[in-house]
Amino acid sequence: MANKYDVLGIGNAIVDVLTHVTDDFLVSENLTKGSMTLVSEQEAANIYEKLGQGIECSGGSAANTIAGLASMGSRTSYMGKVKDDQLGTVFQHDIKSLGTHFGTSAENNGPSTAHCLVLVTPDAERTMCTYLGACVNLTEDDIDEQTVRDANIIYLEGYLWDPEPAKAAFRKAIKIAHDAGNKVALSLSDSFCVGRHHAEFLALVKDGVDILFANEDEIKMLYATDDVNEAALQAQQDCHIAAITCGAKGCIVTHADEIGHVQGRNVEKLVDTTGAGDLFAAGFLHALSNGRSIGECGALGNLVAGEVITHLGARPDIDLKKFVEDNA
Amino acid sequence: MANKYDVLGIGNAIVDVLTHVTDDFLVSENLTKGSMTLVSEQEAANIYEKLGQGIECSGGSAANTIAGLASMGSRTSYMGKVKDDQLGTVFQHDIKSLGTHFGTSAENNGPSTAHCLVLVTPDAERTMCTYLGACVNLTEDDIDEQTVRDANIIYLEGYLWDPEPAKAAFRKAIKIAHDAGNKVALSLSDSFCVGRHHAEFLALVKDGVDILFANEDEIKMLYATDDVNEAALQAQQDCHIAAITCGAKGCIVTHADEIGHVQGRNVEKLVDTTGAGDLFAAGFLHALSNGRSIGECGALGNLVAGEVITHLGARPDIDLKKFVEDNA
Repeated sequence: MANKYDVLGIGNAIVDVLTHVTDDFLVSENLTKGSMTLVSEQEAANIYEKLGQGIECSGGSAANTIAGLASMGSRTSYMGKVKDDQLGTVFQHDIKSLGTHFGTSAENNGPSTAHCLVLVTPDAERTMCTYLGACVNLTEDDIDEQTVRDANIIYLEGYLWDPEPAKAAFRKAIKIAHDAGNKVALSLSDSFCVGRHHAEFLALVKDGVDILFANEDEIKMLYATDDVNEAALQAQQDCHIAAITCGAKGCIVTHADEIGHVQGRNVEKLVDTTGAGDLFAAGFLHALSNGRSIGECGALGNLVAGEVITHLGARPDIDLKKFVEDNA
Repeated sequence: MANKYDVLGIGNAIVDVLTHVTDDFLVSENLTKGSMTLVSEQEAANIYEKLGQGIECSGGSAANTIAGLASMGSRTSYMGKVKDDQLGTVFQHDIKSLGTHFGTSAENNGPSTAHCLVLVTPDAERTMCTYLGACVNLTEDDIDEQTVRDANIIYLEGYLWDPEPAKAAFRKAIKIAHDAGNKVALSLSDSFCVGRHHAEFLALVKDGVDILFANEDEIKMLYATDDVNEAALQAQQDCHIAAITCGAKGCIVTHADEIGHVQGRNVEKLVDTTGAGDLFAAGFLHALSNGRSIGECGALGNLVAGEVITHLGARPDIDLKKFVEDNA
């Protein structure tokens, strides 16, 4: 297509700290398994002190998706806010290292670069505690109009609804994209996040979102139903395209009046589910950018999500382009 | 034993940045495969810019050994210098998280916490570029006399010979340890490091070292011979105990008038050799602290080294105590 970028991601720019914990640890810290909890810097430090050795690597939901897209060969850009500290350097390096355009200026002052304590239990499920840090300083001013116009699809994470100024940035980006005739994709991010911002998300999905990503819990929370198929039908009404991930079972995809289920791939060694949804979106959008059918988009999403859960961390640790070719 | 610590490690406190590179990249950067090169902050930044996504995790040769020992249940302490920046926080957290005593004060000013670019080629060999940063500020004053006296064995890395003030710290620690009737262990670290400080290392090994760790290249460089068996015999003369690692072949161990070869274990999936020597020393010293024979020490060294090379990074990513029990 004529635009400079296939996908522009906008999200919370975060460095992950990955550690293994027991289920008892989650209970003792009053953390809900599988959820994302926002914590203060001090709360993060208190939990960190109790954790074992960690591995640090770049994260952030939309950033993970963009990294996956870039690794497959999509033309990508990313907007997110870091501070010019050591973790900010790591984040910027990693996102640029895959060829992604990253133009958001780093803050010189204020809170440090965001970090997320990713607590991985023996069942490979991850529970997250996020200190948003510099992310709270992403504002409308950071949304460069030309870059948004230059992207066929802008991809937004629901987590952006948590830091207040990012909401305005989010709305500005949607308006620019639609005015330019480009598409808007949204990932609902987390059922607790959907719960926190329920009415706003529902309005947004109906009016501003062309391509919706969610998992079963999130879509059921959004449409206040216990039936994922019922929720999928509602998503089909509200958005041009919707993709609902169902863990090992695969995904439900809708496109205009089509709806279908795409079988999941068998994953031999499940290590860490961090990034599964993010990389599903990467595979889906990569196929979509290449003019594939909605079923093929779902299948590539499943394939790429299946790779990221075989190792610790939410970013691909292999060349996804080659991986996709080898497994097509 | 009566002392408070089984092993006190003293070394360069470093956070590793692990990335995959091609052999061509090493050639284009004039890096010698398998070696450690000291670089300035700017040189490190220039190389980093050309690298792909990385994973950050605590490293440092002696610190890796101490982490391995702590994970097996040895009573450990560590001395090394970081700055009070984000990577310094990571290093301190990780070493303490395993129950290791860490009392060295972090610097408020001066160079940032050391980092090492660990470039892993497809054959799993690692090539390292180290920016020493705050490590250059480890001095005699950081060697707490009581802590040294409290350790049955002090374990020193040859890399300490690179930052000038650390040499004095090194000598001070040896004197305190020997005056207290404790043992001194040294890892030669790197054949290039041995080459840089050849005469000094030779004098040190003859006069100040009770337990010597080296790989084939290092021991041959130290004794200026092409024959590893000849070098082993010389080490046997100079040190009470010597252990020479020979990669997949296992190790040669000497103890007073005993000398023998301990067969290596078969490793199914070789991923990254970073930390192999460090974890060998951990297994060896853990067995030694538990009164095992020299052959058993070599065998535990081989076993634990075999674990760390199956994953990215130089620290154990499993509970080594359980691993050792399961594989005894």
